[in-house]
Amino acid sequence: METIKIGLVGLGTVGSGVLQMVENNQDKISNITGRKLSVKTIVVRDVHKHRNVDTENIHLTTELDDIINDPEIKIVVEVMGGIHPAKETITALLNAKKHVVTANKDLIASEGEELTSIARKNKCDLMYEASVAGGIPILRTIVNSFAADQITEVKGIVNGTTNYILTQMQQKNCSYDEALQKAQELGFAESDPTNDVDGIDAAYKMIILSQFSFGTHLKLDEMKIQGIRKMQLTDVEQASQLGYTVKLLGIARRINDGVFAEVGPVLVPADHPLATINNENNAVMVTGQAVGETLFYGPGAGGLPTANSVLSDIVSETKNIVLGTTGNSFNNYQNEADHVKASEIVYPYYLSLKMPDIPGQMLKVTQIMTKIGASFSQIVQTRNDNDSARVVIITHDMSKTQLAQLKEELDQKDSIDLLAAYKVLSN
Amino acid sequence: METIKIGLVGLGTVGSGVLQMVENNQDKISNITGRKLSVKTIVVRDVHKHRNVDTENIHLTTELDDIINDPEIKIVVEVMGGIHPAKETITALLNAKKHVVTANKDLIASEGEELTSIARKNKCDLMYEASVAGGIPILRTIVNSFAADQITEVKGIVNGTTNYILTQMQQKNCSYDEALQKAQELGFAESDPTNDVDGIDAAYKMIILSQFSFGTHLKLDEMKIQGIRKMQLTDVEQASQLGYTVKLLGIARRINDGVFAEVGPVLVPADHPLATINNENNAVMVTGQAVGETLFYGPGAGGLPTANSVLSDIVSETKNIVLGTTGNSFNNYQNEADHVKASEIVYPYYLSLKMPDIPGQMLKVTQIMTKIGASFSQIVQTRNDNDSARVVIITHDMSKTQLAQLKEELDQKDSIDLLAAYKVLSN
Repeated sequence: METIKIGLVGLGTVGSGVLQMVENNQDKISNITGRKLSVKTIVVRDVHKHRNVDTENIHLTTELDDIINDPEIKIVVEVMGGIHPAKETITALLNAKKHVVTANKDLIASEGEELTSIARKNKCDLMYEASVAGGIPILRTIVNSFAADQITEVKGIVNGTTNYILTQMQQKNCSYDEALQKAQELGFAESDPTNDVDGIDAAYKMIILSQFSFGTHLKLDEMKIQGIRKMQLTDVEQASQLGYTVKLLGIARRINDGVFAEVGPVLVPADHPLATINNENNAVMVTGQAVGETLFYGPGAGGLPTANSVLSDIVSETKNIVLGTTGNSFNNYQNEADHVKASEIVYPYYLSLKMPDIPGQMLKVTQIMTKIGASFSQIVQTRNDNDSARVVIITHDMSKTQLAQLKEELDQKDSIDLLAAYKVLSN
Repeated sequence: METIKIGLVGLGTVGSGVLQMVENNQDKISNITGRKLSVKTIVVRDVHKHRNVDTENIHLTTELDDIINDPEIKIVVEVMGGIHPAKETITALLNAKKHVVTANKDLIASEGEELTSIARKNKCDLMYEASVAGGIPILRTIVNSFAADQITEVKGIVNGTTNYILTQMQQKNCSYDEALQKAQELGFAESDPTNDVDGIDAAYKMIILSQFSFGTHLKLDEMKIQGIRKMQLTDVEQASQLGYTVKLLGIARRINDGVFAEVGPVLVPADHPLATINNENNAVMVTGQAVGETLFYGPGAGGLPTANSVLSDIVSETKNIVLGTTGNSFNNYQNEADHVKASEIVYPYYLSLKMPDIPGQMLKVTQIMTKIGASFSQIVQTRNDNDSARVVIITHDMSKTQLAQLKEELDQKDSIDLLAAYKVLSN
């Protein structure tokens, strides 16, 4: 049986998982693809570092050229992470006619278009199933199984760190800082958690999901991204009492001919499937015009789950090589999207307000809401601290224009502070 | 742009959905496949029957030969259902070198192996994504995304009718008969619900899922299949009080080198993802050695969701035609499975017992459990009717051998009746 040789760039958790899976699942892979797979060369920073995986028959090197100049290596897996020099590495590999598999969401979200065109020029494949939601096979599923449907919305919990923190806040009544510390101790959050807790990692994934779902190319700086760094336990508890679970959701929706995408904390009804996704798990909900609501749930990160997605790309690539069908884009759905007007983006909102505990304050809020044409569905005065009252409101549908007007009007009232404004998901 | 002509055999709910989706999503399909799709001919029983879909430019006929003898038609969708004459129809189509897409689970589960080999002989494709869990793209996901992983278990709610009935019993405290009647009124159950409520439909789907997950070919008569026809509201309520939801689950598990598959009512912990799947929805949980637990949730039936799965096959087929890669099996994972011994199949059980409300009865039960080496984790004496007591037991892990011994021992005690024995899922 012919053997297809693989190169790896990077040998961290995911790289080790890939190596392990290629070794352990030879029989099944051969059974399906008719080829043997074997990792030949791995580019690492330090060839002498102790590894937990067996690399005895593998060439460890610091030189990318050892892969580039090796005609035997057909598929290369990039798991070094980061944008530079990963971009230059992948570019060099594609130009050397290697098929590339990567798990690098930052890179694909920001440079994917350019890298895809380099791949196409070289008649090579660039696959990146593992870049979104680690172990959930969501990208290939959208490509293959929603091809004839119009996806109207894709939303989900696509960051495990923040979901872990929010789950802990909700279930253990601990503060954001306590939950973050616990996440760091357990390895679910990095020592610098910025990318995760500020929603940037989730936004990268939503850019890729939007591209597959709607054919659009969003840019990070065009998206509104709100993280969970300022999340108050009070709001998590208040939401819970009102029957909601706070989740950091990425939402991308087709509105008329445009696509709206955002990342931020959202109140999800407790009996909604997304409310039951806890801790480091991820879930993506895809709504199609024909199919309705579908949900894909699984581990969002971790060495082996992510490695499994990398392997699904490698097997796919192996089939392409066997069938002689390389050089087709992973996703070739392209569609221009119009700009979505703020007045078209409509959600109910959860508003948390602080105001002096004296008569007449609620009247002011009610007058503002009436002025901007918005209305309440629920209102709770929660507690008093130092002569101030905390008032929580769940509104009926409001447009982003109305929300901006509300913020502006409240800014003009010195006595009333808007502490939080989160979207509310309908059931 | 080249047009690929499609034939349909059958024009019921799914057929109409397929027709509608091909018409409505031309742009996206062309964008992805580089081909236009068009339904040319539809075989129906009565060409004069009024239809809710526009068939003006389509040739309606009662003659399959109108498709067989038309070289322009490349892909044929069979949505007539049933085993005969569907099998003969598909055989004739494949022998005429047509690629076939079907949603027919009964046929695929029982005759899939033979039809696949006829397809292979003719270098044609036979695809059947819609045959399992309507709108959930589960088969292609297993093929593509678990290719390099070892699936250890696939289980789920794969029948919408029974899930609707059980959900109603649980949420509305109604009897099986009342829930069935409501399901029939709403069109979720057929007037003869046998195939659904006796678990046969679910078993067919588990046969197909096992084939994709483990490469095995199970037979219906080799599987233990238990339906919900005898489900008592008392047991649903009792399970609920103990923190469980009763679901009709299909379970297929790799045990050592064998595969064990069964359909039956199972007590699922209330916070398990499968417990939250309500009414007519379906969900399939796939556990992989590397990836861990993943869950795929969506509509289990319905014209458009099922049509979407048919369309994913059509688009896939169109890509194969364009790339010249037809003639490869939908699933080519093949693996011999050993027989699994009853002593190796181990679960906790929910046992519902009826016994006279007199001293000494519980001692008898305890003695039997001790004799067979099994033990209790929970025990509840629930109510008394006509001098009899109802005792509910949740056991620790018990093998099927032990369960059989227990039944035998209880049979010998005239005074104690085993009313129900259901598996319990661990969290």
